[in-house]
Amino acid sequence: MLALGIDPGTAICGYGFVESKGSRLIPHAYGSIFTTPNMKMEDRLLKIHTELDALIKKYKPDVMGVEKLFFNRNVTTAIPVGQARGVVLLAAAQNNLRLVERTPMQIKQDVTGYGKATKQQVIYMVTKLLHLPEPPKPDDTADALAIAICTTYCMNDAVWRNQL
Amino acid sequence: MLALGIDPGTAICGYGFVESKGSRLIPHAYGSIFTTPNMKMEDRLLKIHTELDALIKKYKPDVMGVEKLFFNRNVTTAIPVGQARGVVLLAAAQNNLRLVERTPMQIKQDVTGYGKATKQQVIYMVTKLLHLPEPPKPDDTADALAIAICTTYCMNDAVWRNQL
Repeated sequence: MLALGIDPGTAICGYGFVESKGSRLIPHAYGSIFTTPNMKMEDRLLKIHTELDALIKKYKPDVMGVEKLFFNRNVTTAIPVGQARGVVLLAAAQNNLRLVERTPMQIKQDVTGYGKATKQQVIYMVTKLLHLPEPPKPDDTADALAIAICTTYCMNDAVWRNQL
Repeated sequence: MLALGIDPGTAICGYGFVESKGSRLIPHAYGSIFTTPNMKMEDRLLKIHTELDALIKKYKPDVMGVEKLFFNRNVTTAIPVGQARGVVLLAAAQNNLRLVERTPMQIKQDVTGYGKATKQQVIYMVTKLLHLPEPPKPDDTADALAIAICTTYCMNDAVWRNQL
């Protein structure tokens, strides 16, 4: 089962493909899509959507995981984050990808065993669990891999519980 | 010059095509794209994007106008509004549509002559300016037509000033 985790953002949109084989977690492609502030907003969204769509078509994941956002404490970033998230969810629907949403606390709990873990703990555990030679950069890539890991757990739990 | 005004929203996404011929304003297609809360969010965004893309390809507007959002006072709606806005801006970029962003105050000023006009004044003036038989329903359609009118003014001003 191949999960694609996404950490949506307009400037940096992290992505990570993680395969679960039994109890093993195997990282596939991971990285971030970058856009610059001198680009028009609609062109930034087009770049994110186009590159993400190409990644989905190339690696053919079974499921996409994104962080569940109840509200955004930082009101000024809520609209741009929402816009990036919009084109990410659209890419999922256009590719008939099942979507899993997990809260930040569920992601931290699944990856570190502690729902209030720090960002550094999450990055440390992502690096360990995936046997990466070094911590993924930027943080958005590490966050996307954390979401992908959490998504594989969520899917395997569901299979185990006969919920799927 | 044909302008497409959009009032983005997840449940109701208003649209209106307005042509400016000299000093005349001619309404073309207008209405709203509806989605229901029982649909998955990604499917709602897909419906909005698919129907909007079809409208753009059918009517071939020269420009798309949307409301400029500095921040959203209602934090809980900022993410969904941003998501809908994201797929709307994406459709503009994918169709090489020039995008014009206008503040709520500019839209009210252009349509009613008063930047702090009420919603009812805006709907009244949209109906008058476009010689519509009755006020457009729902309000999201009227808002989209107001943005389209404002966008034609903005484009004509720019032509007049040789800015385009």
